[in-house]
Amino acid sequence: MTAFSRFTPLASALPSTVPFVGPEAIERSRGLAVKARIGANENGFGPAPSVMTAITAAAADTWKYADPENFELKQALAAHLGCAGENLAIGEGIDSLLGQIVRLVIDPGMPVVTSLGAYPTFNFHVVGHGGRLVTTPYINDREDLDGLLDCVRRENAPLVYFANPDNPMGSWCDADSIVAFAKALPETCLLVLDEAYCETGPAGATPGLQALIDHPNIIRTRTFSKAYGLAGSRVGYAISTPGTARAFDKVRNHFGMNRIGVAAALAALQDQAYLSEVIARISASRDRIAAIARANGLEPLPSATNFVAINCGRDGAYARAIVDGLMEQGVFIRMPGVAPLNRCIRVSTGPEQDMALLEQALPQVLKAIT
Amino acid sequence: MTAFSRFTPLASALPSTVPFVGPEAIERSRGLAVKARIGANENGFGPAPSVMTAITAAAADTWKYADPENFELKQALAAHLGCAGENLAIGEGIDSLLGQIVRLVIDPGMPVVTSLGAYPTFNFHVVGHGGRLVTTPYINDREDLDGLLDCVRRENAPLVYFANPDNPMGSWCDADSIVAFAKALPETCLLVLDEAYCETGPAGATPGLQALIDHPNIIRTRTFSKAYGLAGSRVGYAISTPGTARAFDKVRNHFGMNRIGVAAALAALQDQAYLSEVIARISASRDRIAAIARANGLEPLPSATNFVAINCGRDGAYARAIVDGLMEQGVFIRMPGVAPLNRCIRVSTGPEQDMALLEQALPQVLKAIT
Repeated sequence: MTAFSRFTPLASALPSTVPFVGPEAIERSRGLAVKARIGANENGFGPAPSVMTAITAAAADTWKYADPENFELKQALAAHLGCAGENLAIGEGIDSLLGQIVRLVIDPGMPVVTSLGAYPTFNFHVVGHGGRLVTTPYINDREDLDGLLDCVRRENAPLVYFANPDNPMGSWCDADSIVAFAKALPETCLLVLDEAYCETGPAGATPGLQALIDHPNIIRTRTFSKAYGLAGSRVGYAISTPGTARAFDKVRNHFGMNRIGVAAALAALQDQAYLSEVIARISASRDRIAAIARANGLEPLPSATNFVAINCGRDGAYARAIVDGLMEQGVFIRMPGVAPLNRCIRVSTGPEQDMALLEQALPQVLKAIT
Repeated sequence: MTAFSRFTPLASALPSTVPFVGPEAIERSRGLAVKARIGANENGFGPAPSVMTAITAAAADTWKYADPENFELKQALAAHLGCAGENLAIGEGIDSLLGQIVRLVIDPGMPVVTSLGAYPTFNFHVVGHGGRLVTTPYINDREDLDGLLDCVRRENAPLVYFANPDNPMGSWCDADSIVAFAKALPETCLLVLDEAYCETGPAGATPGLQALIDHPNIIRTRTFSKAYGLAGSRVGYAISTPGTARAFDKVRNHFGMNRIGVAAALAALQDQAYLSEVIARISASRDRIAAIARANGLEPLPSATNFVAINCGRDGAYARAIVDGLMEQGVFIRMPGVAPLNRCIRVSTGPEQDMALLEQALPQVLKAIT
């Protein structure tokens, strides 16, 4: 297969990696149909009816580019969060923002600290910019904040990433420990605090907005993809100081936001009653997943997210066999990629018909592979 | 304004540039309302009714991420274009693809060839990756293919960009000259042939797909933003050899496409009858703009695009005064940024109510500034 001969040395050395294989690709490659889509931490409860109305209303204007300044969405978010619009940057999902952050901070060879087994898309961006991943293991299935801090200091790293609540384990650190970590961090190190799942965590799991808003070396990332049910709309945002937030303007695709997605996000933000309702359903679904796990002799881990990691008690090959076996029955789930996290499978919350399929399929799969 | 202290030297040196100020920003900063939105080469005729239906149908699934492989859209485009899905890469508009291309090819200090006054967003990406812009002037308001080739050879440049049909001038080169240019290009230079406006050009203005499909050093970029009327949906694509097309997988945001936008693009592609109708309306609107220009003593330039560049016969300050004066009356247009192109204003085609506003406002503006 002939390619252009003069890509940069960095680009030439990169694999054509896909961080996650999508369920559609699995369907095509294995000739299977997904019946329960509970593997990508999407929100099967879907967005609010008010969001559907907003999408239909916005459709007629999709011939127009979105406002490149994202003024209206920034204002609405600022009012909701209790900050200024200048504290915010908007992007095509957190993934896009992560790519921009890595690009702004990392030159080839520079160390980037994260946990071993944490979000692969962050690692994809680090590798893509020639960064050198420095990892510390999870401890008891939680991010090891002390270990991360030690790595940062030892390497004089300019960038550290973790998610709270965490993906793929669903665990969380309390707000006080996050704030203590942030304050102990050298100001020459940028913390990306990924809060994609902040809406579904317990009280006390997420620092208040004011606690970190004055730190130029902290960027908190959030999204409409999870609790708000808009993964396909691609709207994420970053919260930082105005100076740090402005740096995104140097590299972002200014006309990258889709207009209907922005309208959907605005409507979703206005409908906090629906959000509360969905969060309750997610919580109930976590309990349902945990009960299914226990009924099959597996151990559900506590979760602050819209998914549950389930300890299957054996190695990664065993968990992989469960993931593959469930997919054979149309139940799409995923699993962590690295030991010892990969003794677990990861099941996203979703509507009862998905849970019923899981409940039906799991014992059959376990029986078949034992 | 305090920012993180350790961005890369390249990032630190970049301005927080916005390539284009959006009409919404102009409305906010000047306290004016846009009545005729004919400045951003959007398509005011809007997408097809079938596309509206597809958007509404897709809305309920916007809780799902889009297929990261964009399989269905690639297959549909391949069938439409007469190539293989492997020849294609999909992105969040051409702008996003341009950023990825520059990243794959340009290390700091490397020369990049383009025409003086051509698409500013390409230049934004080049500067953003530390590239060094090498430009050649337009000749008679057209891209100077010989001049571009001379620059490439002189500089041993790895990357050259031009648009055909051209933005901001609306001019075009015939297909034979494009093919001759492409074949004369050293294979160590990647040509980005931006064909955002290919659907609205005359027969013979765009090389057939097969003419360049086997050249690993040619990427043709196209979009649903212009003739298809989906600027806000953010769907563009690149056509090249399978090897070159795969390189995008190394750096793209794999989950960056919005699901409703992809559904809209698929539906738009299926409705070629509507596309033909819109192309006829764009053509008629070009004639209408030209007639308005002539009635005011200005000279419309021939156009193969969905806009018309109008020679106002004086300098950039005069054209700027016309742009500003029209905006005062709610008519949003733009103009080229560089002399001698900036003796022109640039007016996008659009529905009759927009043309009527232009017809009414232009003589008043000209009278006021003379």
